[in-house]
Amino acid sequence: MKLQLALDHFNIQEATNLLKEVADVIDIVEVGTPFIIKEGLKAAEEIKTGFPHLEVLADLKIMDAGMYEASMAYEAGADIVTVLGVSDDETIKGVVAAASKYNRLVMADMICVKNLAQRAAEVENTGVDYVCVHTASDLHAKGKNPLKDLRKIKSSLKKVGIAVAGGINKAMLESILQENPEIIIVGTGITGQKDRRETALAMKKMINEYRRS
Amino acid sequence: MKLQLALDHFNIQEATNLLKEVADVIDIVEVGTPFIIKEGLKAAEEIKTGFPHLEVLADLKIMDAGMYEASMAYEAGADIVTVLGVSDDETIKGVVAAASKYNRLVMADMICVKNLAQRAAEVENTGVDYVCVHTASDLHAKGKNPLKDLRKIKSSLKKVGIAVAGGINKAMLESILQENPEIIIVGTGITGQKDRRETALAMKKMINEYRRS
Repeated sequence: MKLQLALDHFNIQEATNLLKEVADVIDIVEVGTPFIIKEGLKAAEEIKTGFPHLEVLADLKIMDAGMYEASMAYEAGADIVTVLGVSDDETIKGVVAAASKYNRLVMADMICVKNLAQRAAEVENTGVDYVCVHTASDLHAKGKNPLKDLRKIKSSLKKVGIAVAGGINKAMLESILQENPEIIIVGTGITGQKDRRETALAMKKMINEYRRS
Repeated sequence: MKLQLALDHFNIQEATNLLKEVADVIDIVEVGTPFIIKEGLKAAEEIKTGFPHLEVLADLKIMDAGMYEASMAYEAGADIVTVLGVSDDETIKGVVAAASKYNRLVMADMICVKNLAQRAAEVENTGVDYVCVHTASDLHAKGKNPLKDLRKIKSSLKKVGIAVAGGINKAMLESILQENPEIIIVGTGITGQKDRRETALAMKKMINEYRRS
């Protein structure tokens, strides 16, 4: 079970400063969608160069031109690229082909997918490495979280790793751990806290304790 | 009726060179998704600064964090921002709110939307300015084009402008014109041609002749 830190409202300098605090605690650093929009793939490149022991996920949320866009990210040093579950299978297959060429990984983000269980099974068949249950941040204010979807999706997936994202914080972590996902993605649950290192450490400790139990 | 030139496989220098050739022919320049991934929003900013008479569309294909991501693009100088029709209404409304704040425009991209007519009507009700019928580039090889969807969507929209994208070239333009969309989006149909200015001029001439007829 891995802890992925999502950096959304960051520039490269701010991200580097935070990573100096928590790089020994997290497993995957996510260069979030707005971060890439702001800085371009240079953000992924500089973070991979600065913190080579971390896996870098480029949250491109690819919707089209799968092979082309994913290749750009892998060439910039990304270990994992995201593609949207709502995109066409041809697009997902293009991302998977790029991952295969560069020997990297693909995460399908199921944000806003209807018929979640059915689509997750279809997406698994395209050859992605991870399927991510994800509650849109625009729905957090309405009290939605990804726990229900996480429970729903588990039975329809056979071998792919499951990731979970969407407003996860320390208070929610225990119930997420019960579902045993492969990757737990935390953004403002760490980045928005007063003591970011302490929060990351506390969450990592809970993960490790769960794994040992 | 406007001609929008989509710049996808470009960096800022290449885009500037092409725009020097065609800036007097086109109405809207699209900073395409892979172009933004490569360069960040600096691409939109530099193009708007260099060609202030052109409308600049930032093809963010927003899927979440509507208000936040759209605001970033408007602050960089974009006149129009895209949001995905498959995203949640809350996300689209966030983009519309940002557009209202900055006095700019929103285009909803209907790529991969199921139940196109129904969803287009819902999207129109969120207050977007344009609804874009869009065939994914990953489906062009399968011979798909946006003409059928364009015909399908027209009857379900009342007041919003209709844009059309997806492999449009000079040979297809006549049948697109018959449907009278507000914006015609052309990428490799111009950028992939030997004489790009001549092709853009020929397409613009067809558009103008249709408008006069």
